[in-house]
Formats: sequence, C-alpha cells, structure tokens
Amino acid sequence: MKIVRVRIAGDEIAYGAVEEEGIRVHVGSPFVAWEPTEAIIPFTEAQLLSPVFPTKIVCVGKNYADHAAEMGSELPSDPIIFIKPATAVIGPDTPIVLPPDSEEVHHEVELAVVIGKVTRNVAAEDVGPHILGYTAANDVTARDLQRADGQWARAKGFDTFCPLGPAIETELDPRGLKVRCTVNGEIRQEGNTEDMVFGVAELVEFISRVMTLLPGDVVLTGTPAGVGPIEAGDIVEVNIERIGSVRNPVVAGR
Amino acid sequence: MKIVRVRIAGDEIAYGAVEEEGIRVHVGSPFVAWEPTEAIIPFTEAQLLSPVFPTKIVCVGKNYADHAAEMGSELPSDPIIFIKPATAVIGPDTPIVLPPDSEEVHHEVELAVVIGKVTRNVAAEDVGPHILGYTAANDVTARDLQRADGQWARAKGFDTFCPLGPAIETELDPRGLKVRCTVNGEIRQEGNTEDMVFGVAELVEFISRVMTLLPGDVVLTGTPAGVGPIEAGDIVEVNIERIGSVRNPVVAGR
Repeated sequence: MKIVRVRIAGDEIAYGAVEEEGIRVHVGSPFVAWEPTEAIIPFTEAQLLSPVFPTKIVCVGKNYADHAAEMGSELPSDPIIFIKPATAVIGPDTPIVLPPDSEEVHHEVELAVVIGKVTRNVAAEDVGPHILGYTAANDVTARDLQRADGQWARAKGFDTFCPLGPAIETELDPRGLKVRCTVNGEIRQEGNTEDMVFGVAELVEFISRVMTLLPGDVVLTGTPAGVGPIEAGDIVEVNIERIGSVRNPVVAGR
Repeated sequence: MKIVRVRIAGDEIAYGAVEEEGIRVHVGSPFVAWEPTEAIIPFTEAQLLSPVFPTKIVCVGKNYADHAAEMGSELPSDPIIFIKPATAVIGPDTPIVLPPDSEEVHHEVELAVVIGKVTRNVAAEDVGPHILGYTAANDVTARDLQRADGQWARAKGFDTFCPLGPAIETELDPRGLKVRCTVNGEIRQEGNTEDMVFGVAELVEFISRVMTLLPGDVVLTGTPAGVGPIEAGDIVEVNIERIGSVRNPVVAGR
C-alpha cells in the first residue's frame, strides 16, 4: 500500500491510500488507527503533502562507499548519526529555499525509513514490525557551512532542507532499490541501496540503542556518490525505485 | 513568575505557577492560553516534571572560553550548533541512565532558553518577546563517543541525557547569572553567563536564521569549564542563579 497525506478542502489535511482511481481519504492516522471513507480524490486534484511529519529525523552519514570517497572520508566502523529538525520537512512541489548564508547547497537523494511504533533497544532481526514503510528524501545540505562548522546540524537543518514523499510504501524490501537524483532532468546521482554500508535493520537497531524512535520518526539512510549544487530556478527530483519521486523547485532565500 | 509542570492525581499532568503556599494548578498551557484554578499543591507533595517538552533542543558548543580551552578547541567565529532530540528530556529526580556503549559520561550545566512563540529570522534586538523564560539544563554527554564519532548527535542524544528544570523563570535577565554543577555535593563546575562568547539574543537570532523555533523549543547556551565524569550511584545537580536546581541520580543502563 502507498500512504499519502493530502490537503483537502480548505486547510483540512487527511491521510489517504493510493487506489486505482485516486486517493482514498481516511479518517485517523496510520500510526494509531485509521478507517477509509467514501471519498476519493482524483490524482489530478490531489495536493500531496509530506507523507509524515516526524518528531525527529535521524540521519546517517557516509553510508555509501562511493560517497564517502568523493567527500575524502574513510568508511566509519559504526554509523555516524546526526539529526535534522522536523521544521526542515517539506512535501512534493514545495520550494527548497536557498539560505543567503550559503553559497553551495547540494542535493542528496536518500531512502527514508518511516517508523511505525515506539522503537527502543530493538535488535536488527526484530526491526521489521517497527517499520511502517519507506519514502524518498532529499537530504539538502549547505556544503560550505558543513565544512566550516564541523558539526552538520546547521548545514542540514535549514527550513525546507528535507523534502519527503511522495508516499509511504508499506510493502517493500529496502534492499536492491535504485536511487536517483536529477536536476532539470539531468541525472546527477545514481546508486543502489545494495551498496549501503549499514543496512536498514542494522541502522534502526543502532539508533534505537541510543534514542527512542517514535511513530512517524524518519531515518535517512545516507546518499550515494554524485552530490552537487542546486541553484535558484532549478527543479530537483529524487527518486527511489518502487516508491516514486519528490520534485521540488529551488528558490533564492530573502 | 516560575512556571512548572507537575504530575497530579494519577497520570494527569498540568502546568502550574509557583506561589508562596505551593503550586497553583492551571488549565491550558503558558504557550497558548492558561487560566489558574482553585487547586494548590503543597511543595512537599508536588511531583515536578521537566517544565517543558520541546519539539527540538538546539544546543551551542564551545560558548565559554574556559570550556573550549579545556577541550583543546579554539573559539568559533560563529556559534556551532547541534541538536539533542526531545526524547532525551527528563525532569527533576528522574535517573540519568548511563548507556553500556560509553565508558565516560560527563555532566555539563547550561542555561536553557525556553522559546515562547514561533521564531523565524528574528534580529537580536527583537528576540526578547519570543522568549517565555529560562530554566536549568544538564547537557549530559558521552565524551568517548563524542570523540569517536566527530558528530555529536549520538554522544549527546541518549534517552535521559537532557535533565531540564525545575521551573521556567519568566522574569530574568540572562546576563551575569552564576551557573554551577555539583556531583554528590562537591562543586565541579562554577561559571557565570557573563562569560558566554555569544549571548542569548545573538544565539536565538543566529538559530532563527537557520530553522524556525516553535513554542516550547529549548536553546542550550553552552557550558563553562569543569566538565567531568558521572558514575552510577552519583547524584548530579545543576544550578542556575535565580532559577534553581535540577538534581538527578545516575544509574547504569541495561
């Protein structure tokens, strides 16, 4: 099943499930309890939002060997984690705003794991039922500020720096999926989740030994090689096989 | 005024204001709208919780010259920010749990700023009305993991690693306050907020140029020199002048 979040009449927001004829509006949330309604929104009329609004986004650095190499880094022996704030999340078609304080903002396509229930100290082999599904993410990064600060929270924490979507795919093996990023239709990153250093189950185990993951929290699993700049006027699209694409225009900040 | 959050009968939680005879229970929240009730809880019966449960905790590294020196670091030209997850927050008297993955967990007393309203791109001179008040924090840190990872999110992100309290003091000039940490009654850190490299207004301006701060979000302003280990069986207490103390026992993790 593909789960989306949509804006319906006015300011109302609802979860929905993708069906053949459109999006079946549900009441409630897939994290607690939800029920289908009679309403179906045709795809052409649906305004998709980020499929989830997490309490936190826990990210993993240098989790593809080719990207670690292009950053001049060695592969870590343990996952290197950092946090993006929830205020960075946007959905499909919402602009990524380039901050005036950076002159080098990069795209990073990543497979995103959406946590389904409270997850604390869970062994890798037991992780499965804790995952609601997967979506696509762009871990937008101000590369110059990342280098300057050493810590990555500022460079990766700007509002709009975490496009998520288009849907949470709940029936998916996260291994062996193609991941791709295009800018203005030109391929910039092309990788495969089979090249991740630490797999999804290992990552969730590792993070859950540190901090409790809550329903809706998101784990970003790292990016393959090919990261590069985005500029005002660009259209950047991240795509994960079997999940789909999130496409965002890029605009200059105030 | 001193604002607290208390557990009342059963599992009910309420905000309250400290009065002479005890804690005046309120309905609602100081972040939206609240009203006093007739109920007063005597201090001896009040079970204090963390005075706020933030969506994020934005922290500042190396913001006291003497602590930067003891860490072998130079002073940064811009604030270095990092994020602690909300799941790290505990209140007074709740145990700090030492993770088995670390052999060197340190205390760090810090002045905590509690944001009162949505704060985005706010200039230092306009920060005042965006702050609800101040509380005391312990930025508990697994020093060995901080060194090993480079990124600080894991070392500072464990559940229980952010004691906050005892109250939010709303009428306070954050300059010139004594900050102190004791372990088993012995003084380990003693500093003064007048020695902060970047002041509260500058920090909030800087962070608000990156990410939107929401009501209840917390900004930790850095720690003075004297950080050191805590061990199972210890009682660690952080104190900020005119705010009060948060005291927590330390226990070994599973």
